[in-house]
Amino acid sequence: MYREQIKVLDCTIRDGGLMNNHLFEPDFVREVYKAISASGVDYMEIGYKNSKELFSSKEYGLWKFSDDEQIKRAIDGIESRTKISVMVDVGRVNPDDIKPASQSPVQMIRVASYVKEIDKAIFLTNDFADKGYETTINIMAISKDQGPELDDALHQIQEESQARVVYVVDSFGALYQEPVEALVKRAKAILKTKEVGFHGHNNQQLAFSNTIEAIIHNANYLDATIYGIGRAAGNCPLELLIGFLKNPKFDLRPILDVISKLFIPLQDKIEWGYLIPYAIAGMMNEHPRAAMALRKGDKKENYREFYESLQGMGID
Amino acid sequence: MYREQIKVLDCTIRDGGLMNNHLFEPDFVREVYKAISASGVDYMEIGYKNSKELFSSKEYGLWKFSDDEQIKRAIDGIESRTKISVMVDVGRVNPDDIKPASQSPVQMIRVASYVKEIDKAIFLTNDFADKGYETTINIMAISKDQGPELDDALHQIQEESQARVVYVVDSFGALYQEPVEALVKRAKAILKTKEVGFHGHNNQQLAFSNTIEAIIHNANYLDATIYGIGRAAGNCPLELLIGFLKNPKFDLRPILDVISKLFIPLQDKIEWGYLIPYAIAGMMNEHPRAAMALRKGDKKENYREFYESLQGMGID
Repeated sequence: MYREQIKVLDCTIRDGGLMNNHLFEPDFVREVYKAISASGVDYMEIGYKNSKELFSSKEYGLWKFSDDEQIKRAIDGIESRTKISVMVDVGRVNPDDIKPASQSPVQMIRVASYVKEIDKAIFLTNDFADKGYETTINIMAISKDQGPELDDALHQIQEESQARVVYVVDSFGALYQEPVEALVKRAKAILKTKEVGFHGHNNQQLAFSNTIEAIIHNANYLDATIYGIGRAAGNCPLELLIGFLKNPKFDLRPILDVISKLFIPLQDKIEWGYLIPYAIAGMMNEHPRAAMALRKGDKKENYREFYESLQGMGID
Repeated sequence: MYREQIKVLDCTIRDGGLMNNHLFEPDFVREVYKAISASGVDYMEIGYKNSKELFSSKEYGLWKFSDDEQIKRAIDGIESRTKISVMVDVGRVNPDDIKPASQSPVQMIRVASYVKEIDKAIFLTNDFADKGYETTINIMAISKDQGPELDDALHQIQEESQARVVYVVDSFGALYQEPVEALVKRAKAILKTKEVGFHGHNNQQLAFSNTIEAIIHNANYLDATIYGIGRAAGNCPLELLIGFLKNPKFDLRPILDVISKLFIPLQDKIEWGYLIPYAIAGMMNEHPRAAMALRKGDKKENYREFYESLQGMGID
C-alpha cells in the first residue's frame, strides 16, 4: 500500500533552530540523529550553512553555520542510512564555503528562495550539484506568490536548474487542502523531470493534513519535525507523518523515545506550537514575526488587540 | 463566497465537560454563552441531559443534567440569536424528563448513538421532534463502523426518523480527508432530505482539516469548541473555523477575548489538546480512554510502552 518513492526529511534541528538562535547542544543533536536514524527517516537537515561573514558566531549557535567538522562530530560512530541535509538561504551563503561533496558529511543542500530570487537559487543549486550534492529549491512564502510569476519560476527551474526536487513551502501556515492541491498539481505539471516536495507550517493546525494532501497529489518529498518543533507554530509533526505512512522501513518508537526524553523537557525552555497569535497570522497570510514578537512581550495573551492591529496593516 | 446554509455549533461546555465531570461554574458558562452569542455562532450545546436516576449529581456537575431552570439562569438577560442545544446518549436519558419545547429554553436535542443502537436513537428523535425540538442523530465512532451496517442505519434514519441532521462523528480522531470525503458523500447520497454534519476529534491534529473536508463535500452542520477544548485531544477549534468561514455574520473577536480571559487560565486546571498518547490512540483507531488513564498516572510521558501496549491489544 505504500509509495516507495516517498522520502521523509526531518528538519527538527534546522527549523527548530529558528526558535533558539540555533543553540542546540551537540549532544542534543547527536541524540536526535540517533533517533532519526533508528526510525528509518531518509534525511535529516542539521542546520543552515550561513556565511560567518554575515552572521556572528557569538550571537548564533553552531547550527546556523553547520561546519562540516561539527556535523562529523555529531554523527560520528552512529549506524545510519539517513542522509545529512543542510539549508542555505539565497543571499546568506558564500558558495566558496561549500567544499566538494566527496569531502563533506553532507549529501543534500536545499536552497530556500522567494519566487523573485529564483535566478540566484538556480545558480546556487547548479554550483552545489557540480560539487556532487543532491540539491533542492524550496520556494518560500508560496501562499503570497501564486500569480503568473510562479509559473515563470517553475519553468525556469525546470529548464535551467539541476535541482532534483522543488518544494512548495507554506511559510505562513496559510494554506488548506484546496490550495495545496492546486499548487502541487501546478508544480507537477511544469516540473516534468523533477520531484515535488511539501513543507508546511502549523499555524492553523493544518501542517499534517496539508502534507497528506500533498502526498495524495503525488508530492514525494515531505518535511516534518519531531513533536512539530519549528518556527512559531512549528511544522508537520514527524510522529504523525510516520504513523500515517505505511512503509515498513519506518519505526515510530525511537521518535516516541526522543520526544519523552528531550522534547517534553525542551518545551519548558522554548515555546512552539499552536498559539492564537500564530493562528491569526496564518489566517491572514502574514509572516509570523509580529506574532513571535508579541509572545516575547507582556501582552502575549492580548489576542483581540493583535488581531485588530494585523487587520489594520492591510489597510493603507 | 460563503455558503449560507452552513450552521456552526459550539459544544465547548458539552464536550469540554467530559474532561472535568461537567463541573463548569454557572458564571463560566454564562461568559461562554455571551461570547458565542456575540460571535454569531448558530448553536451552543450547553451540556448533556442525562437521567439523575443513572448518574449522581454529587459526582457530576450541572452540565451532565442541564436542567432547564439551570440553563435559563445561565443565559438570562443576554441578547442572543444563538440557539441552545443539549445532547443525550442512547440509554442514558429518560424521555419523560424532556418537557415540550415550548416550555424549555432548549431548541435542539442531539442524540448520540452507535450504529448498532440506531433504532433507539430514531425512537428518541421522534419523541423529541413530537415535543417541538429540532433533532439530530450523531453517529459516534463511525471510523469503526464503515461496513454495510452503516448504510442500513442511514437508510433507516432517512425513512423513519424526524431528525433533520445526521452527524458523522470521528470519536477516535482516526479519520483524515479521504475517509471524511467518502463518509460525507455516502451519508449525503442516502439522506436525501436531511443535512449532514461533522464532529471531529483532534488526536492527530486533523479535526479542523477534516471539518474543512466535510464542508467541501457539502456537510452544513459543523461542530467546534473554543480553543479546541474537548475530550482528550479535543475538537475542531472554533476560532479556526470562524476564521475560515467567510460569512460576515461571524465575529472572531469575542471568541479571542474569552480565550484570553477564561481558556488560557483553564489550561492550568484541565489538560486537553495534542498529546502523544492521544495521537497514538487516533493512529490506531482506538477509544482515548486508555490514553486518558495514562495521562492521570505517573507514566504519562512513557509513550513507547503505551504504544506497544496498544499494539498488543490488537493481537488475540
